[in-house]
Parts: sequence; C-alpha cells; structure tokens
Amino acid sequence: MSSTTTATPAEQTGAHTDEAAALIGGARERIDALDDRIIGLVQERMAVSAVIQEARIISGGRRVNLSRETAVLSHYRDALGKPGTALAMTLLELCRGRV
Amino acid sequence: MSSTTTATPAEQTGAHTDEAAALIGGARERIDALDDRIIGLVQERMAVSAVIQEARIISGGRRVNLSRETAVLSHYRDALGKPGTALAMTLLELCRGRV
Repeated sequence: MSSTTTATPAEQTGAHTDEAAALIGGARERIDALDDRIIGLVQERMAVSAVIQEARIISGGRRVNLSRETAVLSHYRDALGKPGTALAMTLLELCRGRV
Repeated sequence: MSSTTTATPAEQTGAHTDEAAALIGGARERIDALDDRIIGLVQERMAVSAVIQEARIISGGRRVNLSRETAVLSHYRDALGKPGTALAMTLLELCRGRV
C-alpha cells in the first residue's frame, strides 16, 4: 500500500484540509490492518472448506451442499443486512474455487 | 446455524458415510466461528471507512477516493489471486453503503 512520494497528504487522501488528511492517513492504516486479518481468515475458511468438499466427494457425495450454503447466506445477512448476502455469495464462490 | 432435528448427520452434511459426516460437522463449526470473526472485522471496517468518508466530505472532498480503492483491490488480489478482486469490490461497496 505504498503511496506516491510526490503527492501531498491531501492529494493522497482526497481530503481538502490537513486535519482531515491526517485523520484519514491514520484510519487507512487501521483499514489495511483489518484487511490483512480479513484476508487471513478468508484463506483459513478456504482451507477448511476444501477439507469438507474433499471428504464429501470421497464419501460419494457432491462438492456443494445447497442447504448449508443457504444457512451461510442467512448468517451473513442476519449480521450485515441485505449486503451481507452479496458478501457471502462472493465468499462461497471463492471457497468453491469457482470465481 | 441450527440444523433440522429430524435429519441424520449424513443428510445434514451431504456426506455418504458416517466418518465423513462427523468430519464435516466439526469442520462446519470451525467455518461458523471463522464467519463470525470475518463478520466482526467487516463491521469494524465499515465503521472506520465511515469515519474516513465523513472526514473527507466535511473537508470539502468526495466520498470515494478511486486511487485508494485501486490500492485496496490490489491488496486483495495480491493475497487471494484474481478472486480477491471480486471480494474486495464487494467489501468496498459494503463500506460505501451502496450495495
């Protein structure tokens, strides 16, 4: 997440005051740290999901279990509202290896 | 994530053996815990992003900073490959409150 060395803080952040630029700079560092943690959890989710899919396929079942995916969609929608469904669909696709 | 009480473990998991059903049952509990943590981080990300947007708008700037969004997309793509871009786009939309 490097920034252009020639840009001023205001230019880098899109803020029009130095105070706002400073606040945004600090908040972006928090966002970057959150993104690293989200990415780590998503990678862990993909790994656990791969284990589940392999076990189900080896046992003679199908890769995807739709009633389970519906439960996951509800989990995200209940917590994040309607946009949670879109996030869960993207995550499920990632974990199915289809995206 | 309650399951139907009348369904057998095999029916609940889509596995065709008891061993696979047991493994999947345990792995699903791990996924549910990961999802709770992902949801918590996403809610935190939305809150920090709202602070950034408010500060930028109050300073006279715009809600969205496209060069920053491009950097976030790269962050996710670098870590998760091409599907990371789709995930980041969904997250950015969530944090902009547009979904």
